[in-house]
Amino acid sequence: MRKLSMDELNRKSVSEFKESEKIPIVVVLENIRSAYNVGSIFRTADAFLLQGMYICGYTAYPPHKEIRKTALGADETVQWKHFKKVQDALDELRAEGFKIYAVEQASNSIHLQQFNYGGEKVAVILGNEVTGVEQSTIEQTDGCIEIPQLGMKHSLNVSVAAGVVLWELVRSNLSQER
Amino acid sequence: MRKLSMDELNRKSVSEFKESEKIPIVVVLENIRSAYNVGSIFRTADAFLLQGMYICGYTAYPPHKEIRKTALGADETVQWKHFKKVQDALDELRAEGFKIYAVEQASNSIHLQQFNYGGEKVAVILGNEVTGVEQSTIEQTDGCIEIPQLGMKHSLNVSVAAGVVLWELVRSNLSQER
Repeated sequence: MRKLSMDELNRKSVSEFKESEKIPIVVVLENIRSAYNVGSIFRTADAFLLQGMYICGYTAYPPHKEIRKTALGADETVQWKHFKKVQDALDELRAEGFKIYAVEQASNSIHLQQFNYGGEKVAVILGNEVTGVEQSTIEQTDGCIEIPQLGMKHSLNVSVAAGVVLWELVRSNLSQER
Repeated sequence: MRKLSMDELNRKSVSEFKESEKIPIVVVLENIRSAYNVGSIFRTADAFLLQGMYICGYTAYPPHKEIRKTALGADETVQWKHFKKVQDALDELRAEGFKIYAVEQASNSIHLQQFNYGGEKVAVILGNEVTGVEQSTIEQTDGCIEIPQLGMKHSLNVSVAAGVVLWELVRSNLSQER
């Protein structure tokens, strides 16, 4: 086994990325406190070729020094929009035919491994690092997706949680193509 | 849908965690530069009730202020060991019957969604944020696991990559129990 060189990885250029057909998933960020987390999620959204990010409330948005530091350029490829009010983001997603889910531990939540993603338009909301997705936001979703957690702590880092949930969705998309 | 309270989450205490039967997965960290990433991986290892972390080379290990900041206490639940040389960690894992995989983009790597985890003892190596897992380390593994990446960038944040790979393994463990 030999590590692949940068050339062999055969990644897309910025223009190739922008022209590529995306996976119809939008990541919604609600009041994320750390711009480093936002940058890390940009990087994940690039890697998984997602449709875009809706950045809401007081979450930092590009151009931003700390986002740039962890996005490593993905803030220039991934489509994003800023909404002062998460409500406006949800309204736009609804109008465009997206199903909307919050990543949250809630009554009647769907365990991640049981979430059936069939390639339809889906928006996934990640909330504040401490308080999570707002209850008023949860009430407008089609459901909550919960990452099963077995340990002592009550949560994962928000950019790790985003990566895990997005991988699960992208994963089923890849399986369908096989 | 209603968000669950801390009490309802019914998480384990430190002593309950230590007594619980773990998923036989060891995370090996090789020369990770950022102690924040180490802390975030501790948190993930706690959430997924993993057997432990082998912290190698110049990777920071507890007690450490920056690890503590992102581990949020998981550095007190998750079992860990420090090895100056990754070789010693690999030798110990082999002697204990672990299969060893590097998370890396390499020739003949196994795509993550095709990795069959059957609940056996598995060690997963995560490498330096810039240079990845050392070639000399890769040569001693049973294979490389690659997270399919479709975008412009060449990698995910290391704690996100760890979360994605560990979720995939834990996921198959959960499926078996169903």
